[in-house]
Amino acid sequence: MRIDSATRDQLQAWEKELSAQYERICQHELNLDITRGKPSAVQLSLSDKLDGLLNGDYRAGDGTDTRNYGGLDGLICAREMGADILQVPTSEVIAGGNSSLTLMYHAVLTGYLFGFAGNTPWREMKEPKFLCPVPGYDRHFAICEQLGIGMVNVPMTATGPDMDAAEQLVKEDQEIIGMWCVPKFSNPTGVTYDEETVERLSRLGNIANPGFRIFWDNAYAIHDLGQQVNLPNIRTATVENGTVDSVLQFASTSKVTHAGSGVAFVSASPANLASLKEQMQAMTIGPDKVNQLRHSRLFPEFSMLKDHMKKHADILQPKFACVLKHLEDAFADSDLGKWETPKGGYFVSLDTRPGCAKAVVKLAADAGVKLTPAGATFPYGKDPEDCNIRIAPSFPPLEELDTAMSVFVLCVKLASVRNALQS
Amino acid sequence: MRIDSATRDQLQAWEKELSAQYERICQHELNLDITRGKPSAVQLSLSDKLDGLLNGDYRAGDGTDTRNYGGLDGLICAREMGADILQVPTSEVIAGGNSSLTLMYHAVLTGYLFGFAGNTPWREMKEPKFLCPVPGYDRHFAICEQLGIGMVNVPMTATGPDMDAAEQLVKEDQEIIGMWCVPKFSNPTGVTYDEETVERLSRLGNIANPGFRIFWDNAYAIHDLGQQVNLPNIRTATVENGTVDSVLQFASTSKVTHAGSGVAFVSASPANLASLKEQMQAMTIGPDKVNQLRHSRLFPEFSMLKDHMKKHADILQPKFACVLKHLEDAFADSDLGKWETPKGGYFVSLDTRPGCAKAVVKLAADAGVKLTPAGATFPYGKDPEDCNIRIAPSFPPLEELDTAMSVFVLCVKLASVRNALQS
Repeated sequence: MRIDSATRDQLQAWEKELSAQYERICQHELNLDITRGKPSAVQLSLSDKLDGLLNGDYRAGDGTDTRNYGGLDGLICAREMGADILQVPTSEVIAGGNSSLTLMYHAVLTGYLFGFAGNTPWREMKEPKFLCPVPGYDRHFAICEQLGIGMVNVPMTATGPDMDAAEQLVKEDQEIIGMWCVPKFSNPTGVTYDEETVERLSRLGNIANPGFRIFWDNAYAIHDLGQQVNLPNIRTATVENGTVDSVLQFASTSKVTHAGSGVAFVSASPANLASLKEQMQAMTIGPDKVNQLRHSRLFPEFSMLKDHMKKHADILQPKFACVLKHLEDAFADSDLGKWETPKGGYFVSLDTRPGCAKAVVKLAADAGVKLTPAGATFPYGKDPEDCNIRIAPSFPPLEELDTAMSVFVLCVKLASVRNALQS
Repeated sequence: MRIDSATRDQLQAWEKELSAQYERICQHELNLDITRGKPSAVQLSLSDKLDGLLNGDYRAGDGTDTRNYGGLDGLICAREMGADILQVPTSEVIAGGNSSLTLMYHAVLTGYLFGFAGNTPWREMKEPKFLCPVPGYDRHFAICEQLGIGMVNVPMTATGPDMDAAEQLVKEDQEIIGMWCVPKFSNPTGVTYDEETVERLSRLGNIANPGFRIFWDNAYAIHDLGQQVNLPNIRTATVENGTVDSVLQFASTSKVTHAGSGVAFVSASPANLASLKEQMQAMTIGPDKVNQLRHSRLFPEFSMLKDHMKKHADILQPKFACVLKHLEDAFADSDLGKWETPKGGYFVSLDTRPGCAKAVVKLAADAGVKLTPAGATFPYGKDPEDCNIRIAPSFPPLEELDTAMSVFVLCVKLASVRNALQS
């Protein structure tokens, strides 16, 4: 199906045929949901022995009684796990509570209210802004929006953010004080940043405002579907380029063990850690160390964590294959949609023809298939082209996903044809 | 020992004798710590069956899979526990993570950055301030200090804050937008607010700035040492006085189960809850529901929670008795110190003669007994009379506490006599 070369008669014939198919599907009264990147129950069950694992022994290897108060940095054994995941020194890692999003929120607060490492607090700037590779993660954008931090779109490419654009923006506007990145299996396009992109990102600290910080949300660091994809180490690059203070890294076990009850990590330079901890110490006496100990007992070696991730991959891989097959079958030989083929992570995203995404999401919803709202992958919920749709294959069982994708591709076709007829 | 009626010769004789005793004690090279209100290992062990309690069943009573993301309010069964502790409706409770301090920090942030229930954000005011009953809890004051919120001292009495002073201040200064309260077994004096105090507090909302909020940190709601002490219900009082939006209540299981791994609660009016949740939803996908479920399984009935607290009381009561006996024996018939007799909570506090507290803490430290720094119980660490010292009896074993208290009372005597000789 090629819209651009179709005649009006052809479009009308398609519209009629697709509408009829759509009407039939609507009668099935489906109730399917592919909105959020939640692990499925089968995946969660992989870690069910977490509870009870301590067997009455609440002492960490270093003698800490994990049951009591204290220890802002988290347990050493948990920090080591974070260091393994992010490939950074343990001394630069804080192990926190159940959410890396919360760590990111607090890190943004630190910059906003107090400034990092002696730099101007962002709230004292006229118009502080973050660079936002788009499409991106809605919860990143929500943090900026809540605090009134401006957002500037940077297009995502197949190798990461458009670095010409990012460098240009940072050079021209010294009020750009942050940037969101999901560097591996990017949310939602699934892309992993390549060597050149990471290198150029690590040099932004040399041209940007000294208070500029990259929020490196490495949510899918070990979430490969098959062979391991190598993400270049940004810390190493910043050490080489003298910009260690320009990056804060985040990870968690949310999509490793139990999504709501994991351990989150932040890694940063000594100067940044000092700033983070100054803010933290008014807010908490310390994280849940018992849960950190559980995680460390479940995975005493990093190799065990990696083996565990293979079990997730075995469950997720067929779901990604299903989504990709539907897209391939429906759109490979068409001008209806473009997508990347993720080798890990939690999402596939489709770019429809301009002006179609909202219509697709609406059609799917009416047919009983819930999708992430169109626009959610852009700051302020505004997709300037109205074309990006995020697909989250992880949560529903395979058969449901298969049905949902059949409906989805049909909705894309129908919306595209209708859109073409209107223009 | 009565300093005021002693002659200079008498003082000198005492100084000589006490100094000799002190020198002897210093030779013991003690290493004792009565600084922080941490439960002892024996208390923590009361809840050791928490881990493993779920027995592979991670579903809450309402069907929620606690392992996955979601649910900003926390599990219903956890919220019910918070409602029982605070004696408020479940619908007004959010069950959070492992720290009520963190909930308080975020609640202050909500007021500061965004304002509660449509009121002016505190940061937009010229000089926003909190009333701080003193002596009080250092971590409350640290939150205000970090955000640059001013603090105004209000003296504590044996029945709660001096309400004449509080009312006067709130009436005169409409930039007073908050007040810290530890209403039951107050930190550090151990006092419980009486009926009249709670009633008058509940009416502050009618004379203060509409954005004024009382932070009701009911940390010791169920932490009675013997017979239950009744704290009048402030929610009931605010309902009667039309000031439901003026109070936010906090509690946690930190001193019920495992101190670092409990569940914290905030209770507030619907308008305040909406404000809190608006802030929260950019910060988190939800609390650790698995841990909430553990707590709910440990205490399916409130009566079981109360029975559990009796076991804590059995451990703590002899420690409080030890502290009080030392104070009684040393100072009952003297003008060296004043104190309240707490019927619960985690602290005893002593008011020395003016100008002696720092000297006592220094003497004790040099003799190997660590006390909370003098001044810590006041905003900015400044005790205007330099007289209040907080004693935390819970953590050390009884024999160590006994030794520490012997040293402590000796240091109080010595510092008092030396102070009198210098003036």
